[in-house]
Amino acid sequence: MISKFFFPKTIAIIGATADQKKFGNAVTMNILENESLESEVFLVSHGSKEICGISTYESILDVDNDIEIALILVPAKHVESVIDDCIQKKVKGIIIVTAGFGEINQKGKELEKKIALKCRSAGIRVMGPNCVGIINRDINLNASFIQMPPKGHISMISQSGSFGCACFYKMENHNFGISKFVNLGNKIDISFGDILPFFTRDKKTEIIAIYMEEIIEGRKFLEIIREVNQKKPIVILKGGKTKKGREAASSHTGSIATNYKLLNTAIHQAGVILCENISEFINALKSLSLLPIPNNKRLAILTNSGGTSVLFSDNAEKLDLTFAEFSEELKKKLSPHLISLVKIVNPLDMIAGAGETQYYEITKALLDDKDIDIVIGACVIPPFLGMNSIEHYRGMIRAWNESNRKKPLIPLMLFSENFEELLYYAYENDAPIFFTPYEAAYAAKVLIKRSEIINRKK
Amino acid sequence: MISKFFFPKTIAIIGATADQKKFGNAVTMNILENESLESEVFLVSHGSKEICGISTYESILDVDNDIEIALILVPAKHVESVIDDCIQKKVKGIIIVTAGFGEINQKGKELEKKIALKCRSAGIRVMGPNCVGIINRDINLNASFIQMPPKGHISMISQSGSFGCACFYKMENHNFGISKFVNLGNKIDISFGDILPFFTRDKKTEIIAIYMEEIIEGRKFLEIIREVNQKKPIVILKGGKTKKGREAASSHTGSIATNYKLLNTAIHQAGVILCENISEFINALKSLSLLPIPNNKRLAILTNSGGTSVLFSDNAEKLDLTFAEFSEELKKKLSPHLISLVKIVNPLDMIAGAGETQYYEITKALLDDKDIDIVIGACVIPPFLGMNSIEHYRGMIRAWNESNRKKPLIPLMLFSENFEELLYYAYENDAPIFFTPYEAAYAAKVLIKRSEIINRKK
Repeated sequence: MISKFFFPKTIAIIGATADQKKFGNAVTMNILENESLESEVFLVSHGSKEICGISTYESILDVDNDIEIALILVPAKHVESVIDDCIQKKVKGIIIVTAGFGEINQKGKELEKKIALKCRSAGIRVMGPNCVGIINRDINLNASFIQMPPKGHISMISQSGSFGCACFYKMENHNFGISKFVNLGNKIDISFGDILPFFTRDKKTEIIAIYMEEIIEGRKFLEIIREVNQKKPIVILKGGKTKKGREAASSHTGSIATNYKLLNTAIHQAGVILCENISEFINALKSLSLLPIPNNKRLAILTNSGGTSVLFSDNAEKLDLTFAEFSEELKKKLSPHLISLVKIVNPLDMIAGAGETQYYEITKALLDDKDIDIVIGACVIPPFLGMNSIEHYRGMIRAWNESNRKKPLIPLMLFSENFEELLYYAYENDAPIFFTPYEAAYAAKVLIKRSEIINRKK
Repeated sequence: MISKFFFPKTIAIIGATADQKKFGNAVTMNILENESLESEVFLVSHGSKEICGISTYESILDVDNDIEIALILVPAKHVESVIDDCIQKKVKGIIIVTAGFGEINQKGKELEKKIALKCRSAGIRVMGPNCVGIINRDINLNASFIQMPPKGHISMISQSGSFGCACFYKMENHNFGISKFVNLGNKIDISFGDILPFFTRDKKTEIIAIYMEEIIEGRKFLEIIREVNQKKPIVILKGGKTKKGREAASSHTGSIATNYKLLNTAIHQAGVILCENISEFINALKSLSLLPIPNNKRLAILTNSGGTSVLFSDNAEKLDLTFAEFSEELKKKLSPHLISLVKIVNPLDMIAGAGETQYYEITKALLDDKDIDIVIGACVIPPFLGMNSIEHYRGMIRAWNESNRKKPLIPLMLFSENFEELLYYAYENDAPIFFTPYEAAYAAKVLIKRSEIINRKK
């Protein structure tokens, strides 16, 4: 049944409007704008007779066709009567976008219960209320009032719509993206436990991302994620970890307290990636989207900046990463490409003069080495000796491509966020860039954690 | 004496060259390119008779004028004899840019000792070797091979040149910058203890930034920073905090171990800002550069995104921040500007429809309130209702300007790094943007820490 929400044959937008200052318009336009969408769309409106040349209906009951999914956008006080219509119409699923329920007061909570009960009796599944809607990027369905995300392999469940919106901004700049997105809102019916099994079966979903502020039935949730995580990696960010955070969450989605410490331990034991903050969350998703899973955990680091090598090493130790031992054979192979000032150790500081050739040759040799599983290519873009700002990165990516990207290459280009040519080169090559030592170390950690799950299954 | 390094009347570049593939050329060009530089420059070169139309000298001894500062860029094996010339010439200070000394082997360490001893006997102060050089942005002196940083109020001592280089990239994008910069390299003579008192006296220096991989004479260093920090805020990042980090540092600058735990405690007790990583370092410097110091520590938060409010609150508790209580009077003042769905609490979630007017009016009321010391203006830029991507930020900055920027306003525009119009508006208004909940919470923490030092002195 959940799949109908993502692949609806027919959708009714109840509360569609031509008034551009209303959310009912935002959702309507987001759905209509995608010409390649194959779902049939019906608009139900009180105020607008026609929207974008499409005639509207006064009520869902006036529509002749069967309706699979009804999107509700009318003001909170009208929602119940619209739900009654939907029940009469025998829709399969309802998404209540409208806010102003359990998150604002007790009266709202009671109304939620009433609606939930009605729909359950009628065998209708409900998403929301107080949510931005649902997105299936694969079929160009944007049944939400936020923007269409870039296309990718992540399916995300978020208890905050704007959180999703912000993540999409970041994905846009980092060359990865979304398969499916759902914002659960106050979750009076559909919750994590309903969506997760669907994402597990869904062929386009390769990675599962969760932002949650509350978990009901923690034990059941943990069982599900443990099982799902065996098949597809799950990345979780929990909002409301602290007392202050929980207080804010209670005004946001009416959520109640969760014991974060217990949750933390249990999630980690399940081998799921639990992020400390939104930066780690994006970073984990980027790593899993753009890099292969290594066979093992031995890192090699090359750099042109001693400081970056020191800072990376500090972060590596903090995250308990393992540095590879360079064999004598490898050292002999590296030596001809390096100047005599360079000490051949791991991390390998090739010193400021190293350019594209050194980055290419050394990356290639390290990726080829059987005792190395992950290569960290660190660089501060040199503003001297006429060096091109993308040459170091280009050298590394060339070596990585020649190795068929079998091992992860983690390019750490310190604080190079504004080198447009570099970002474009990364985009063209479907390659990641990490901007700080912590990000690069964290990416390695995420990949290693995933490889442990895979190796355990073998 | 140290001031002569930053304000030299005469400079000799020993190892100047027209060969663009050499560091000697990079430094020469960086110095010559700034036409407004008033220092007189003399070029000493073996290979190039003329560089940029300026005749060179075979030796510093051929120069008629007195030389205050000699920059040495010749290969390591020639450095000692060039030093002998400098001693004979009675220069006041020497900067050895050349690498290949104590950081590579024991022989290099011995040579360093010999050079240090010679110079000390002659009363000449030495910076380096193995450093990128020195920058005084205020007089347009760039005696280094890295780029000129944006102008600002930070004076930085870095044990890594490329670290400085990367920080400048970041400052360029974040509207703050540098007064003076020095890379100490292997510090055979001049060290933190020499530069810090100079920065304390220097009028253009308002903030002191330190990246260090090693401290010799820890007790003396701590005494100095405790004293300096009473006058000007010091922000420190320590590289080589861990075993792996120290090993990397030892190949970088030949540094030896420091007990980080002890150092950590002592630095914190001194009220100095000790950052955990380079992101915090940049963030602390940005906060101190662009925001006023608050009188006290009570935070108010406004937002259009419940998720951001939850995530900010988690970070706030982690950093032990204090939320203000909204008085009944304030609530009455806020109420007319908010829709009925909004619960008037702190954090104040104005919900997704809030636009420029709400951001302006609420920010203004919060800044005006006597029980609020710091305002966090959080926003996820809405991609709906035809809202302009800078309107929320513009509303806040307008309110901040009208309050004469007496209290810190910390704008948290979640993941909005690629909204060019927004970044330009921030640049034009000399205003900061923070991009993640942690960054915003950390900025508040830094400002509060500084206010405690100031209040303690009162």
